[in-house]
Amino acid sequence: MEKISANRIFYGSQEVWTHASAACACDMTFGIFLPPQAADTKVPVLYWLSGLTCTHENFVTKAGAQRVAAELGIAIVMPDTSPRGVDLPGEDDSYDFGSGAGFYLNATQSPWAQHYRMYDYVVDELPALVNEHFPVDGGRVSISGHSMGGHGALTIALKNPQRYRSVSAFSPIVAPTRCPWGQKAFAGYLGDDKSAWQQYDATELVQQQTFPGEILIDQGSQDEFLREQLKPELFQRACRDAGQPLQLRMQDGYDHSYYFIATFIEEHLRFHAQALR
Amino acid sequence: MEKISANRIFYGSQEVWTHASAACACDMTFGIFLPPQAADTKVPVLYWLSGLTCTHENFVTKAGAQRVAAELGIAIVMPDTSPRGVDLPGEDDSYDFGSGAGFYLNATQSPWAQHYRMYDYVVDELPALVNEHFPVDGGRVSISGHSMGGHGALTIALKNPQRYRSVSAFSPIVAPTRCPWGQKAFAGYLGDDKSAWQQYDATELVQQQTFPGEILIDQGSQDEFLREQLKPELFQRACRDAGQPLQLRMQDGYDHSYYFIATFIEEHLRFHAQALR
Repeated sequence: MEKISANRIFYGSQEVWTHASAACACDMTFGIFLPPQAADTKVPVLYWLSGLTCTHENFVTKAGAQRVAAELGIAIVMPDTSPRGVDLPGEDDSYDFGSGAGFYLNATQSPWAQHYRMYDYVVDELPALVNEHFPVDGGRVSISGHSMGGHGALTIALKNPQRYRSVSAFSPIVAPTRCPWGQKAFAGYLGDDKSAWQQYDATELVQQQTFPGEILIDQGSQDEFLREQLKPELFQRACRDAGQPLQLRMQDGYDHSYYFIATFIEEHLRFHAQALR
Repeated sequence: MEKISANRIFYGSQEVWTHASAACACDMTFGIFLPPQAADTKVPVLYWLSGLTCTHENFVTKAGAQRVAAELGIAIVMPDTSPRGVDLPGEDDSYDFGSGAGFYLNATQSPWAQHYRMYDYVVDELPALVNEHFPVDGGRVSISGHSMGGHGALTIALKNPQRYRSVSAFSPIVAPTRCPWGQKAFAGYLGDDKSAWQQYDATELVQQQTFPGEILIDQGSQDEFLREQLKPELFQRACRDAGQPLQLRMQDGYDHSYYFIATFIEEHLRFHAQALR
């Protein structure tokens, strides 16, 4: 583990660290915000999963989350969105596959299977590392994310309900097996067997196992990806059928950007703080 | 005037506009945040001047100012830090002179004098444009900025006390005639006659004319530029000698970054809101 930077913000510390990842077989970089309370005690922790094209940095600089996290005494861990620098053929050719587009799954297809194991990285390797090196309480963990990262948060929470106290998402890809982004990624990472796709589709997963607690989703009504890629109504219907409590809020006039996230991140942090007490 | 973008944030609108500038003899880009109150009434306006290497964009995405500005009903105008794309020789050779380093002055030396007239742009041209095209009250105006932009805010307010209700700064260059950044810029833009330099030095200006109201400055104690470039003690002494009320706050552990600005921007906005009522 190597500390890349540490900056004081809201009486806490915003840090960036790099480490050798066994899951991804490359060096990985993540951001972590430690609130001032972490100087004296172990604090609960929120994992934030970012969307397509992002690194660990976008949420750190643009969401304005540190202010409320400092008030509530919650650490935030912000992993990267894919392995980096592993030089696979075609890795950097498109914004929605390869670098910056790991989709929080374990790839099974060559050559991706060697490195693209973001599911294991986010669910197992990174929390073990964080719990060992930082003053966080590994028993009080929640998860959230945006777009592809909202897909990650929902699928990871639904597959591991015992590990997360709460889950929320902004503008999530809720049904990747039924939208172009997900179909392209899943075909590339998981191959043509569509039964393998379903284990990474929140709308499929919630029909098999619900999450113990209400799921919070914010979605902008002017989101340019709403109709073709995001389709929250599919998840809403599946939750209703499965008896999964869901608060889906359509936010009037907001788009897919970090301006939307910045506006509502405070409400998400307070939602998670209730569950992390 | 051409609208480049508009994004909803905190129930207001974050917009970016480009226009032909007479002062700078090139196209100029600025950001403007319009709070929700601007839908019904003319709102007061804060001008924010950014530091070296910045464009109009840094404060827009990193400061988290829109939340409190929306609550207080204050518009924020965020100009660029220099002319752009005017192709002067050497313009892009260094981070502290030329592009991104206009120093909010009117250059007198060739070839800079043709375009580098950020003082006229910020004091006259841009406010006239903003007052004409947006629902702002041109009689209720305040100014703030960071580093080179803190220098801009202080000098502009001291030279035009009738135009601004209040002035504040983060980590400002308070005595450019006595630090390497300022000496390099002033020699290039204004030539060797040091009497011309004094009209753009806040520590010199405050000894000639005070500002009607307390000046607020926040400075991080771990700022890497504190001792060589910023030297707030010089301005503090000049204010004391001149009878200028000054609140200079040394903030323990903070550096020169936007993490510092994000932490304290709320207090600056509330300081300006008092004066803008």
